[in-house]
Amino acid sequence: MQEFELYQLLERYGIKVPKYKVFDIDQEFFFDHFPCVLKIDSPKVVHKSDVGGVRVGIYSNEELQEAKYEILDSLQKHGIFLELGDKFIVEEEVHGEEFYIGGLFDPIFEEVLLFGKGGVLIEVEKDVCYIDTEADEKEIVKSFKTTKISKLFPKFRGKEYKIEYVVDVVQKFQKLFTSEPIVEFDVNPLIYTDEGFVAVDVRMRQGPKSHFEDRKRSEDIFHNDRVAIFGATDNPKKVGYALAKNALSSKATIYFVNPRLNELFGQKVYHDVDELPPIDTAVLAIPAKYVLDTVEKLGQKGVKNIVVISAGFKESGNEEAEERLAQLAKQYDLNILGPNCLGLYNSQKELNLTFAADTIRPGSIALVSQSGAVLAALIDKAASYSIGFSHILSMGNMADFDFGDAVHALQDKPQCKSINIYAEGLRHGKKFLHQIRKSTKPIFIYKAGKTKAAQKAAFSHTGNISGSYEMLIGLCHSVGATIKKDIDELIFAPAFEEYEEVLIITNAGGPGTILTDIVVQNGKKMYELGQEEMERLDQVLPSTWSKNNPVDIIGDATSERYKAALDILYKPELLIFVLVTPQFMTDGENIAKLIDRPNLIPVFFGNESFKEVFEHFQRQHIVYFNDLENVANIL
Amino acid sequence: MQEFELYQLLERYGIKVPKYKVFDIDQEFFFDHFPCVLKIDSPKVVHKSDVGGVRVGIYSNEELQEAKYEILDSLQKHGIFLELGDKFIVEEEVHGEEFYIGGLFDPIFEEVLLFGKGGVLIEVEKDVCYIDTEADEKEIVKSFKTTKISKLFPKFRGKEYKIEYVVDVVQKFQKLFTSEPIVEFDVNPLIYTDEGFVAVDVRMRQGPKSHFEDRKRSEDIFHNDRVAIFGATDNPKKVGYALAKNALSSKATIYFVNPRLNELFGQKVYHDVDELPPIDTAVLAIPAKYVLDTVEKLGQKGVKNIVVISAGFKESGNEEAEERLAQLAKQYDLNILGPNCLGLYNSQKELNLTFAADTIRPGSIALVSQSGAVLAALIDKAASYSIGFSHILSMGNMADFDFGDAVHALQDKPQCKSINIYAEGLRHGKKFLHQIRKSTKPIFIYKAGKTKAAQKAAFSHTGNISGSYEMLIGLCHSVGATIKKDIDELIFAPAFEEYEEVLIITNAGGPGTILTDIVVQNGKKMYELGQEEMERLDQVLPSTWSKNNPVDIIGDATSERYKAALDILYKPELLIFVLVTPQFMTDGENIAKLIDRPNLIPVFFGNESFKEVFEHFQRQHIVYFNDLENVANIL
Repeated sequence: MQEFELYQLLERYGIKVPKYKVFDIDQEFFFDHFPCVLKIDSPKVVHKSDVGGVRVGIYSNEELQEAKYEILDSLQKHGIFLELGDKFIVEEEVHGEEFYIGGLFDPIFEEVLLFGKGGVLIEVEKDVCYIDTEADEKEIVKSFKTTKISKLFPKFRGKEYKIEYVVDVVQKFQKLFTSEPIVEFDVNPLIYTDEGFVAVDVRMRQGPKSHFEDRKRSEDIFHNDRVAIFGATDNPKKVGYALAKNALSSKATIYFVNPRLNELFGQKVYHDVDELPPIDTAVLAIPAKYVLDTVEKLGQKGVKNIVVISAGFKESGNEEAEERLAQLAKQYDLNILGPNCLGLYNSQKELNLTFAADTIRPGSIALVSQSGAVLAALIDKAASYSIGFSHILSMGNMADFDFGDAVHALQDKPQCKSINIYAEGLRHGKKFLHQIRKSTKPIFIYKAGKTKAAQKAAFSHTGNISGSYEMLIGLCHSVGATIKKDIDELIFAPAFEEYEEVLIITNAGGPGTILTDIVVQNGKKMYELGQEEMERLDQVLPSTWSKNNPVDIIGDATSERYKAALDILYKPELLIFVLVTPQFMTDGENIAKLIDRPNLIPVFFGNESFKEVFEHFQRQHIVYFNDLENVANIL
Repeated sequence: MQEFELYQLLERYGIKVPKYKVFDIDQEFFFDHFPCVLKIDSPKVVHKSDVGGVRVGIYSNEELQEAKYEILDSLQKHGIFLELGDKFIVEEEVHGEEFYIGGLFDPIFEEVLLFGKGGVLIEVEKDVCYIDTEADEKEIVKSFKTTKISKLFPKFRGKEYKIEYVVDVVQKFQKLFTSEPIVEFDVNPLIYTDEGFVAVDVRMRQGPKSHFEDRKRSEDIFHNDRVAIFGATDNPKKVGYALAKNALSSKATIYFVNPRLNELFGQKVYHDVDELPPIDTAVLAIPAKYVLDTVEKLGQKGVKNIVVISAGFKESGNEEAEERLAQLAKQYDLNILGPNCLGLYNSQKELNLTFAADTIRPGSIALVSQSGAVLAALIDKAASYSIGFSHILSMGNMADFDFGDAVHALQDKPQCKSINIYAEGLRHGKKFLHQIRKSTKPIFIYKAGKTKAAQKAAFSHTGNISGSYEMLIGLCHSVGATIKKDIDELIFAPAFEEYEEVLIITNAGGPGTILTDIVVQNGKKMYELGQEEMERLDQVLPSTWSKNNPVDIIGDATSERYKAALDILYKPELLIFVLVTPQFMTDGENIAKLIDRPNLIPVFFGNESFKEVFEHFQRQHIVYFNDLENVANIL
């Protein structure tokens, strides 16, 4: 498209462009908005400035004529001769702060807008945010607020900057980008004026866009009343053994399937799909080569939920089998979890359909993980600290059921209080964003594969592309998810999410300072001591106590002094850190005994002196820390 | 100063300004560099633009005359009437990329320069770096490289940007700022042109500057052959007891002083300074009120090193006593460590002059801490993992001996391989930078007090101002120190600093990806597998192994497979993470037994399944991790 056609396109979507006129090369030029700019607009000229095809600072129609001849001269010198059909554009000069808007068609997130500071330094400054084409006003503003240039709004050095103009121009480009066959565009600068943004320099690339088409799923993946385990076995070295054993203790009805067995754990074993009574959920821990046939038979039988534990698909280069699995899911309206996954857990039925641990406790955390090993590790940690789960989904290769489906499936589950996602790569990003946006539960995401080396590792691991970390976190943040930086936060943070204010009682000022940094940087507030509390503390603490939170009860504090301070300050709604460093008089084991309520968190900064204390906490399943930085995991 | 005087001042230091002429108000104006700018320059007009005191875009001497009358008109409308003595400045318009240089007199770092991107958005973009006035060319460039705008150099979009111009203009401002009685200045914009930077808009504030004066110290604080402990006691509840006991096992000669004791641990106890034989080091663990007298007597006796353990000085509001302590140090040429500190450790004499732990092992790490409790915690952790120290200094209030002195004192100590500093506030920042710059040993710094809430806590704790975190880390980075983000790194990172390349052997792809992220983000390289190694691994690993580092030996790996991979890949120069997640077949206890060399680091991601494994590592003093993010501490 020539430049004047781009201007016309923008105008059709209500996007302002400079006042302009298009002239044929043999026309006489007249214009009445000065100062103005004259530009050649011909398919023969790609980089106008390089061949002298632009003149700025034109103040009159006489100067405009001169400029025309100067451009023609310059083009000739560069070997470019114009013909009829080539055009000139005259446009008014627009002045104001320079912004940028661009769009790209991403294989994961499809149409994505970029908005932020413009100008020639854009690659250097990188002060842009990512905006989904479905983002509404609130989301656009939230995303924009992550840029530095947004600090100009609502007023900077006496000049008003209207956020409505940002929303308006972004919404118009959302419409344009999703309606037109454009795969990439750049507007730089997009100039802020008192009447709104004006698009000055526009570049667009057309091309085909293939959109992922979502489908309705008629069954809930957590409808697990009658479950069949394919590959159940009495060989304790096999996955099918652990699956069968873990499943047995649930409230669901469990069937076993294995062509070479007749009985297992005192139960009948079925030999194939046809024999089975009606079920809603099948778990396949059978060789990969039998999976497709079995899935087809299950589909024909009307079984909707199929958990494919078996590996040997995309991750081993077997793309074809994986695609077939996805087709079957569509054809029979199935929820296929996996393949190459660890299974699922459903607290409603106390149903552990994983071959991981046998120690999953019911609770309020939904954990969704693309890596089975990360899942196993987090479940193992949770078991140590009495942290319970409402639901667990091991996503595996995500041939069919993906993160968006997981978020959707958890919405109507009252046990689930937060959705915690470990992601390596994504598929169907727009659907995922859509589900996060609609979610009534808080969503926490940890994304692996930040560096190139790690992306390479992730690719060889799950066969999914890791994608741009910045784009993913930018988009997920703006739709309302919280990005976590330490993977352990996926289980610890939601367990303590309810607390807003923090109290620190410490025998050491320095570590108290560091912990305060960590508390504040993670968005929690330091509780402010009341006058009465201060006076009561004055009675029981040495006169040098800090008179402030962190409550420094001084290095020679023993368990009695910790108890005295706690007796005065304890409140069930506070998250209270009992911070202990190994000082001369410190009786750690007695201080440890004070930790008897769930909002008291021991931070024993040291190790050698506290070994027995830590063993005590481990035995008691108490969440504790032996360092400071990790406390961030529960904030 | 009026603007033309500022121009003259800059020119005296060789700093380019626009071509300009100064006119009295009744003079006729002539200028020959167009386009040019006309500005009023009168003490009556502070904000020129606000009262129409500036005209730009002047192309001829006629326009210049008109501009003069326009300005006079506008000033009159604002009630400003000029008199003889008021001036006009005419100057050429200068075009180019806008930079910024400024200076401020900081109470800690004294004269500090700021350099970076200029323009009206400077407060919003904050793309500036901090530069010390003693910084040389290399340091200026290092500091500048932390800004985004530095990416224009050496070439951006076809235009050359010369780094020499940056160095040149900064050096000239360094000279100006240290030579003139200026406490603050701003040049914005400082315009990059093909001939160098041109200072266009200049603002300066004059005022008095008081510089810290360093003094020569005749004695080495680690000269500790003959040590007296004041306040040594047989009461095990007192600090003087632990001090005496810890000191006794050293190679130094130890004397005890206590007016109320005659014998302690079978040794004679002296009653006062006069009785004592000649000593080089005194440790005071006596009530604060006796400290000053004792120090004075020690000074008179010629004792140069005095460690004041006693609290009750600035941290309790007793500023006067603290100042007197500093005076005595000067008067008698003393090294006074503290007050309000934990003491020191000197591996050369195996001398533990702290009342912290009795478990300090000799090693290569020098640890310097402003917080006694942090020191105690780190020593306690180090004891668990066989990490040893060459020297330890508990700095306390730093009445006399400060971080700069500490860095200096460690330079000639061959045992010390790295200097690791925990800092809350600083004093004498310029001296500190000077010593870091000269240091032949790597320096690692953790700075507490990043947030306002924490700064408040730190202030009530040590009585020192925390200062701007950004300025401190900016300056320390540019002189060559490394800033650490986790306090545990101060002991762990130096213990593993020698390793440059990392190998990961894992039974899980996801955690391998995350660990790769952490390795790369912390500046280590992932080892690249050789062809022969790949082929040998193919023989012993399942065909689905990752063919890449991280070496994913697949989820069903047992200790035999870990051993087989290690046998092929082990190299003493690699840092090798043995990453284990609790999977179905994982025999953690046997894998743990493979950890038998110091460069094998176990990362057992989980907890409940690995409790016995962790107890084994604790007993064996092996550094281990039960999570991924903390691995950063040793990178």
